Amino acid sequence: MEPTPEPDTRTRRRSREQAPKVTRQPNYRQLRHPFPAQAMFSDDEIAAIHDTALRVLEELGMRVLLPEARQIYAAAGAKVVDDMVFIGKDIVRAALASAPKRWALRAPNPLRDQDYAQGAMIFMAGVGCPNATDRDRGRRPGSIADFVETVQLCQHYDVIHMLGPMTEPQDVPVHLRHYATLQAQLEHSDKPLFLFSRGPGQVQQGFELIQTALGLSDAEFARDVWVSTVINTNSPRLLDNPMAQGLIDFARAGQMCIVTPFCLAGAMAPITPAGALTLQHAEALAAITLTQLARAGCPVSYGGFSSNVYMKSGAPAYGTPEHLKMQIGGGQLARHIGLPWRTASGAASNTADMQAALETTMGLWGASLAHGTLIVHTAGWLEGGLTFGYEKFINDIESLQVFSELASRPSGSAAEIGFDAIADVQPGGHFFQTQHTMDRYQTAFYAPIVADLNNFGTWSEHGARTSTERATDVWKQVLRDARKPEGAEERVARMQPLIAAFAAAGGASPMD
Amino acid sequence: MEPTPEPDTRTRRRSREQAPKVTRQPNYRQLRHPFPAQAMFSDDEIAAIHDTALRVLEELGMRVLLPEARQIYAAAGAKVVDDMVFIGKDIVRAALASAPKRWALRAPNPLRDQDYAQGAMIFMAGVGCPNATDRDRGRRPGSIADFVETVQLCQHYDVIHMLGPMTEPQDVPVHLRHYATLQAQLEHSDKPLFLFSRGPGQVQQGFELIQTALGLSDAEFARDVWVSTVINTNSPRLLDNPMAQGLIDFARAGQMCIVTPFCLAGAMAPITPAGALTLQHAEALAAITLTQLARAGCPVSYGGFSSNVYMKSGAPAYGTPEHLKMQIGGGQLARHIGLPWRTASGAASNTADMQAALETTMGLWGASLAHGTLIVHTAGWLEGGLTFGYEKFINDIESLQVFSELASRPSGSAAEIGFDAIADVQPGGHFFQTQHTMDRYQTAFYAPIVADLNNFGTWSEHGARTSTERATDVWKQVLRDARKPEGAEERVARMQPLIAAFAAAGGASPMD
Repeated sequence: MEPTPEPDTRTRRRSREQAPKVTRQPNYRQLRHPFPAQAMFSDDEIAAIHDTALRVLEELGMRVLLPEARQIYAAAGAKVVDDMVFIGKDIVRAALASAPKRWALRAPNPLRDQDYAQGAMIFMAGVGCPNATDRDRGRRPGSIADFVETVQLCQHYDVIHMLGPMTEPQDVPVHLRHYATLQAQLEHSDKPLFLFSRGPGQVQQGFELIQTALGLSDAEFARDVWVSTVINTNSPRLLDNPMAQGLIDFARAGQMCIVTPFCLAGAMAPITPAGALTLQHAEALAAITLTQLARAGCPVSYGGFSSNVYMKSGAPAYGTPEHLKMQIGGGQLARHIGLPWRTASGAASNTADMQAALETTMGLWGASLAHGTLIVHTAGWLEGGLTFGYEKFINDIESLQVFSELASRPSGSAAEIGFDAIADVQPGGHFFQTQHTMDRYQTAFYAPIVADLNNFGTWSEHGARTSTERATDVWKQVLRDARKPEGAEERVARMQPLIAAFAAAGGASPMD
Repeated sequence: MEPTPEPDTRTRRRSREQAPKVTRQPNYRQLRHPFPAQAMFSDDEIAAIHDTALRVLEELGMRVLLPEARQIYAAAGAKVVDDMVFIGKDIVRAALASAPKRWALRAPNPLRDQDYAQGAMIFMAGVGCPNATDRDRGRRPGSIADFVETVQLCQHYDVIHMLGPMTEPQDVPVHLRHYATLQAQLEHSDKPLFLFSRGPGQVQQGFELIQTALGLSDAEFARDVWVSTVINTNSPRLLDNPMAQGLIDFARAGQMCIVTPFCLAGAMAPITPAGALTLQHAEALAAITLTQLARAGCPVSYGGFSSNVYMKSGAPAYGTPEHLKMQIGGGQLARHIGLPWRTASGAASNTADMQAALETTMGLWGASLAHGTLIVHTAGWLEGGLTFGYEKFINDIESLQVFSELASRPSGSAAEIGFDAIADVQPGGHFFQTQHTMDRYQTAFYAPIVADLNNFGTWSEHGARTSTERATDVWKQVLRDARKPEGAEERVARMQPLIAAFAAAGGASPMD
C-alpha cells in the first residue's frame, strides 16, 4: 500500500485515450456509515435503561478490587463499603459532561489517522485470539510469527483501520510480550497502535516505547491519542485490578480506553436484551466515570459487546437476532450519552464456512446500523474469538470492502443517467462498446479479491475450489508481497535500545 | 407445519411450572421490513431518472413483437412504427394512476395469504434454475422429482412465503410441463402459486386448473390474485411475444404480473447505476402500461433485477456494491410511482461457500433496505440462477429467519430491564438460575437450524463438518418428514380430470 493518499476516482470521467491503464483505487482509509443510525427501543425505553443503570450503580454498586480506584471514587463522593463502590448519579453525570465527544486517533502515518467520533466507521480485525489457523498449517497456539503475519495482513488492506491483539504470541514470555507486540506493530504497519492493559509496568513502558519510536515530545504524546486499550469489566458488576489500573493509567496519559463490558444475555447478564444492555450500560458508565475522575476530559470510548448464549450449551452466539438487537440498542445508549462507541461483529462458527460468513456479515450490518464508531472482530474471528482464521480473514475483507463501497453514493446526474447512451443501443442490443461504457469500465465496479465470478465450467476446470480454499492463495500472496511501511525501520531502530534496557532490567510482569 | 396460526410467543411471560414444555414458535408467516426504506439518490435525481425513463419511452420507444400488444398501445394513442412503439408520457401517467397500490395475494390456505403492498416483506426461494444440486446426488438437470422436493422444502419453512419455479423439470415435455408444476405446487404446498407466462394456451389452462382445484367461482377467481407470473423484458427495450401476451392475459384475468426487467449494467444496460435504473424503469413502465391498457385497475407489481457484470468475464455479479445501490435506487423509484415492487438477492458463487453466503446476505439486506415487497432468489440460488442448491437453501433459510426476527422489537419495559434480576446476582456471579432467566429461557433466543454453536472440541468430535455439510442432514430430514398440507389431496383430485382432458387433447405448446 502506497503511503500517498488515494482519492476516490469513481466519479472521475476518463476516456481510454487519456488514461489507458487506470485501475480502480477506492478510498477505504477513512469511512463514514452508509446509512442512518437505527433504533430497536423507543426513546422512553432508552431513557429508562439509562436511568436504571444509574440506579444499579448507586444502589447495587460495583465491586472494585483496586484500592487506588476505590479511593478515586470515594474522593468524588461515592460510598465505599469494603470493596463495593456505590456511585451516585451526580458523579456519573459530571463524568459524562467532562468526557470529550470526539478526538483524533493518531497513527504512525498521519494518512492513517482516524476521526474517533459518532458517525465514523473504523474497522478492527478479529482480536484476542489465543490460537491461529489456516488451511496450510492447521490450528495452533498463536506465536509471535503468527502475530507478525496478522499485522501484515491488517496492514495490506486499507479497510482495516486500527491494529489490535489479533493473536496472542504465546511463545514469548508474558513479561516480555508487550515489547514483541509493539515492535511487530511498528515494524510491519503504520496504523493506530494497541497495547494490552496488563498492569502499570507494561503500560508505562508501552507508552515510553511508543513515544520514543514516534519521536514525540512529552507534550506531543500527551496531546493526542497514540495508543488504545480495551477495558473489559468482569460482568456482572466487577472491575478487576489490571482493568481498573488501565483505566487510571491510560486516562492520566491522555490515551484511549475502549470500555467493553462483555454481557452475555442469559449467562453473565440478564436474559433479556433490555436487561443485558442495562448491565452493559451500568458497567460502562462506572468505567468511564473512573477515567474522568482520574483525569477530567481524557478521551474514553463507550462500548459494549452484548450477545446471547446458546441455551443448550451455554456457548456465546454471534450474528444472532438478539446480538443485532443489542448492537442497535447499544448505539442508542451511546447517542443518549453523546459519546463515540465501540461494538463488534464476530462468529461462533468453528471454521470458515457459510455459518461463519452469515454470522459475521449479519454482525457487520447490525454494527453499522448501530453506528459503532469502532467495530471490532470484523475479519478473521472464529470460534467466538478462540482462533484467528486466515482464510476467514480474507473472505471477511471482501465483506468489509463491499460494505464500505455503500458509503459512496452513485451520481444521478444527466451524464450518469445517460439518455444518449440508451439512444445509442438498438432494442435487444448491448452496451459493451458504447462510449458511455468505454469511458467508465475500468473503474465502474468493485473488483473482488476472492469471489470467483467465472461460470460453473470454468470454475470446475480451475479445481472447483470454495472461496475458503481460494483464500489460502490470497493471504499467502499478501504475505509474500508484504514490505515494511515507509519510516517503520527508523521507528523500530529508535525503540530498540529502550526495549533492550527494559528487558535487561527483567521486563515487566503483568498485574494480578 | 400446522395449518393453525402461530402467534408470536416471545413476549408472553411463562413460568416453568405453568408451561413446562414451551418451545419457541415465532411467526414468520407475514412479515414487515424491520428498518425504514433507505435512499441512494436524492429526490431530485430520482425524479430525473423517472422523467428520463418517460422520455426514453416517448422518444426512443420499445420494440414490441406482439401485434395485439401494439394495437393496444396504439388504441391508447401511442405512435407505432413497424414494431416500434413510442408511448407518450400521458399514457404512462394514466396507467400509473389506475394501477392499484395494494392487494391480497391469495393462497390455497388463507393463513398463507400475503398483503402485497409497500412495507410488506415477502420471500420467494431461488427460482428459474435449470439445474439442481446437492451433496448426495451432485449437479444435474432439474427434474419433476427435484421440483417436488423444492416445493416441499419451501413448504416446510414459513419464512418462504410464495412458490416459484425453483427448478425447471426438464424431464417433462414442455407442452405438458405446466400441468406437472401446478399439480406439484398444489399437492405439496398451500402457499401462493406461480405460473410461467409461456403463451395463451398454457396460461388459460393454468387459470382454469387453479380455479377448479381451489373450487372458486368465476367471480371469486376474478376478484382476487390467485396466481402470479414474472414478466422479463429483453433489455434493452424489447418485449417479446410470450411476455407481452402474458401481460395482457394476466391483466384481463386480474392475476398478478411481476414486471422484472433484467438490466445488467455494462452489458444489456448502461454501465452506471443511474443509467441501468433508467432503462429498468422505462421498460417496467412500458409493461405496467400495457397491463393497465388491457384492463385498468388490474394488479401489477413494479420490479427490477439490476446488477452489474464482472468486467473481466461479462458474467453477472450479485451482492456487489453496485447491486445493492441499484436495489435501493429501485426502491426509491417504486415509491416515486407509489407501487409495491419486486427485487432480488442472489449469488454468483458456484458452490455453497462463504462467497455464496456473503453475496446472498448482502443482497438480502439491500433488498430489505430497498423495501422490496417481494424479494426473489433468497434461498438456494447458485451460479447466478443456473442451479438450485439444497445445502445453500438450508443455510439461506437460517439467514432469512435471523433477519426476520429483527422485525420484532425487544421490550424495554421495567420487567424486561429487570433491576431486581440484576440485584439478585452478586458481582462476578451468573444469571443462569435467576427467576428472570427461568421465566424466559425456553423462548428467549432464536434457535438455529444449521448453525453449530458447540465449542471446537465438541464440533471436532462430531466430525468437524462445515455448515454446508451439516445442511445435507437438514434437508434430508425435512423431505423425510414432509407431508401434504391439509386439503391438498382434495385440491389435486379436483384438478386431475381436467389435466387428463387437457393432456388427451394434446397439451399446450409454448408460444414462440
